[in-house]
Amino acid sequence: MDTQSAYDELIRRSHELTTLGSCSAILGWDEQTYMPPGAATHRGSQMALLAGLHHERATDPRIGDLLLIVEGSSLVSDHESVAAVNIRELRRSYDRRVRLPKTLVEELARTTSLAQGEWVTARAANDFARFRPWLERILQLKREESACLQSALGFTPAHNAPGGKPPVSHADSTLDPAAVGQAAPVSVYDPLVDEYEPGARSAQLAVLFQELRRELVPMVLAITDAIRRRTAGHPAGLNMSASHGSDGEAVLKRFYPRERQKVFGEGVAAAIGFDFRRGRLDVTAHPFCSGVGPGDCRITTRYDEHHFTEAFSGILHEVGHGLYEQGLDVAHYGTPMGEAVSLGVHESQSRLWENAVGRGRAFWKYWFPLARSIFHEALADVTLDQFHAALNHVAPSLIRVSADEATYNLHIIVRFELEQELLSGNLPAADLPAAWNQKYQETLDVTPPDDAAGCLQDIHWSAGLIGYFPTYTLGNLYAAQLFTQAQTDLGGLDQAFARGDFRGLLEWLRASVHRHGQRYRPATLIERVCGRKPDHRPLIEALRQKYGELYGI
Amino acid sequence: MDTQSAYDELIRRSHELTTLGSCSAILGWDEQTYMPPGAATHRGSQMALLAGLHHERATDPRIGDLLLIVEGSSLVSDHESVAAVNIRELRRSYDRRVRLPKTLVEELARTTSLAQGEWVTARAANDFARFRPWLERILQLKREESACLQSALGFTPAHNAPGGKPPVSHADSTLDPAAVGQAAPVSVYDPLVDEYEPGARSAQLAVLFQELRRELVPMVLAITDAIRRRTAGHPAGLNMSASHGSDGEAVLKRFYPRERQKVFGEGVAAAIGFDFRRGRLDVTAHPFCSGVGPGDCRITTRYDEHHFTEAFSGILHEVGHGLYEQGLDVAHYGTPMGEAVSLGVHESQSRLWENAVGRGRAFWKYWFPLARSIFHEALADVTLDQFHAALNHVAPSLIRVSADEATYNLHIIVRFELEQELLSGNLPAADLPAAWNQKYQETLDVTPPDDAAGCLQDIHWSAGLIGYFPTYTLGNLYAAQLFTQAQTDLGGLDQAFARGDFRGLLEWLRASVHRHGQRYRPATLIERVCGRKPDHRPLIEALRQKYGELYGI
Repeated sequence: MDTQSAYDELIRRSHELTTLGSCSAILGWDEQTYMPPGAATHRGSQMALLAGLHHERATDPRIGDLLLIVEGSSLVSDHESVAAVNIRELRRSYDRRVRLPKTLVEELARTTSLAQGEWVTARAANDFARFRPWLERILQLKREESACLQSALGFTPAHNAPGGKPPVSHADSTLDPAAVGQAAPVSVYDPLVDEYEPGARSAQLAVLFQELRRELVPMVLAITDAIRRRTAGHPAGLNMSASHGSDGEAVLKRFYPRERQKVFGEGVAAAIGFDFRRGRLDVTAHPFCSGVGPGDCRITTRYDEHHFTEAFSGILHEVGHGLYEQGLDVAHYGTPMGEAVSLGVHESQSRLWENAVGRGRAFWKYWFPLARSIFHEALADVTLDQFHAALNHVAPSLIRVSADEATYNLHIIVRFELEQELLSGNLPAADLPAAWNQKYQETLDVTPPDDAAGCLQDIHWSAGLIGYFPTYTLGNLYAAQLFTQAQTDLGGLDQAFARGDFRGLLEWLRASVHRHGQRYRPATLIERVCGRKPDHRPLIEALRQKYGELYGI
Repeated sequence: MDTQSAYDELIRRSHELTTLGSCSAILGWDEQTYMPPGAATHRGSQMALLAGLHHERATDPRIGDLLLIVEGSSLVSDHESVAAVNIRELRRSYDRRVRLPKTLVEELARTTSLAQGEWVTARAANDFARFRPWLERILQLKREESACLQSALGFTPAHNAPGGKPPVSHADSTLDPAAVGQAAPVSVYDPLVDEYEPGARSAQLAVLFQELRRELVPMVLAITDAIRRRTAGHPAGLNMSASHGSDGEAVLKRFYPRERQKVFGEGVAAAIGFDFRRGRLDVTAHPFCSGVGPGDCRITTRYDEHHFTEAFSGILHEVGHGLYEQGLDVAHYGTPMGEAVSLGVHESQSRLWENAVGRGRAFWKYWFPLARSIFHEALADVTLDQFHAALNHVAPSLIRVSADEATYNLHIIVRFELEQELLSGNLPAADLPAAWNQKYQETLDVTPPDDAAGCLQDIHWSAGLIGYFPTYTLGNLYAAQLFTQAQTDLGGLDQAFARGDFRGLLEWLRASVHRHGQRYRPATLIERVCGRKPDHRPLIEALRQKYGELYGI
């Protein structure tokens, strides 16, 4: 078989697998949106069947044979060519998949499916002991998964066909094995985080996060001090009238009718570029974005009539994810060149629109008059400055998902540190609640009153998502780097936003990030676009500037 | 391999195929309800992929091998046992599938997909010439399909494995080959209608429909005469006030707010037994019912604020289909014993609830007071009698989907006769418009002003659905037979309906029809339940009684 034919067959198979996965995406979306409750069991069977078909086809030894034909050929000699990128990433996926025994995959699916239900019950009952055995079992399975994947991280191909050639090296990132070396030892955590952020390694993440933490902790302290001093001088807080109470977010907790939130949220989403002809916005208990396939990107939100940002910031966040999905090159659909590069980069797009754009003064200079006319009862006596200040109120809190921009990453760092300890076995699951509470006290100066508001607050571990949390902070760091670079490259972004023009930024993101698909590993992509490796300083600089203006720190 | 193991594997494969089909059902439902328009092309790829996987697995020669092991064994010696029924029907499906060459299946899928779009355009432009070549191509492909399936109708197994044993005979219906004989010639039409109504043959259908027509034509004439005489005496028609105009349906064309129609329609649907925990009601351009799988049955409707029956009768109709789906035995899901028996029997359930129940006076004795309070503006000056009369107004018309109970089957008979002529080649497609108009004049005393209101009105032929129309009339006949029998068996149905109790009827339908799945072929099922073969007389008797009371005929 000649190289080109082998490549073509690989692409055809990749396209088919992606399309099959997109069928599961529709079923998954439907499950969260419109499925009748009585259909839950059958939906489980449908999802399992499609997943089984996918696994069966994705681990077909024929793929290994075809990869060996193409690898090392002239077709992939230019490492940045479409063919080379596709082959590199198809190899990566194939190697990871064939290394996981079917029994382990099934056991993980079964256990995490049950554990998520147990987690819901345990959190509702504030009963960590109930969840503990499930966490222990999941940790054990994830250790096994990690062990199976260790060799894949060295990018040694799975030699399931005789006569396999040595693989191409894929050193293109500072967070990549090139830095570590093919034979370098990897921690039990690394193969798991690598699943979500290809090339990321715990050792580098720890350094990055430590630097971030060193800046954030004093910043948060300075802000809370400033608020305390200001509140002492102005009993109503933040120059707001007494009717707003002393809560800096009070104006956001007035009555915002749901239908009007939908009108405003969809209007802004469309204006910043989300294409509703190729997408939808629905309501779910937990907001998400599902990039189903070409022309089909679905985002969701949830409305709280007494909390404006619950839906609005959520919509901007999911729109950010959606713009990335809608910006992928349709010509490459079904292949790595047409897919998002990592969870961290995905999160960078959502956080960029949610925070760098959507909590900025320039953005609201344009949108606040419309918001005030739509929410005329809630906002009649509120100024742009007051609204902007409320959107950027900082206060250390217990719950990650409602944390402000300054404290959010501290929540992630706590989880990043704890999950490594849990996985390595240094921290027995039984000791998690105490360790969690201690870290929250040290890091955020707050202590959870119970485990429901503490170590039971997030669903991730019950779903087997270990190594996933760091991508949230990577997303925040990348977002700040990308936005800083866009400001430099484009100039006058604030003026453009203030007149309602977001097209320049979107086009820059399309050209810089979206259209590349998986051409570069995440760290490489960031370095190429921003001229710097993944770095905490742009985020710190942006926060310092914003909070300097708001809090005089 | 022993018989039981072979049977078990067949059941497992059947379950898997059904589950895979149910994934397509969700994608199909989504396409009609919530899919963004830009996703249409990708949805086509998803559907094609799943259909291909289904076909590949459904025609696996292994199924033929397994069937041969089980057929003739003691496991299936009792022809009404679960195992015998499942094997009989799995054989039927397998034989039909393996006889169709993949190229023909693909060509039909491609052509009908394009032809439906061409039909939309041709109908909108009232341009039959545009649609004609597509119709010709589809007819040619359906002739080829019929030729491939001819031998399957004799129930000769597809001997794709050596050493095949002779098959079990499946003579259990008067519309079955038993009456025709294994070697009897079948028309080119028979294999197609057999797809939708197993065992139905054009020769018997022609006799049945001819008898029906002989009764309906004079009945419709008598009613229209009565209306003409009455209208001459009462210029406002049907004892209604002048403000209703001379239109017997005028009260139904007042303003019925959409939200209130939804409240009323869902309320009635739930009250007669549709389980919304295991189903949904949504809005689509063309109403349908999709029985996705256990706990998941989705019906749709469309609202016209100036035509009460558009949504309401539609909801009752789809609820009838839905109650059948929700009444299938979940324990047999994924096998013939857990599936609806035919399109005709399915339609009997929808027409029974829509017409026999939902246009009856007893039904409205209970629901009219509620309707009048919900639609208080439209119905304040309307009596139960006036409302009931409007719901049963008869007038020959051009369009099938809005036809009344008396004329509806005449629309079907026209199509049944024409599609056989088209398929046999006796009627060239080019001559269809003239033949259509002539038949409408002869049968319904109306002539379409153009082809859009004539032979272009239905989507079916463009979708390759030839042999499908007769099942609508079979459904009406079965419905009348079943409802007549239920009245006899249960007694006091009118009194039960008048106090809002529909449970007795539903339980009777569950026990008589739903729980049997495909145990009996449709004609056999009807004969077992009603003591009579499929017969036009119960429908005629029911209509005569109803119109006797309303029109004095």
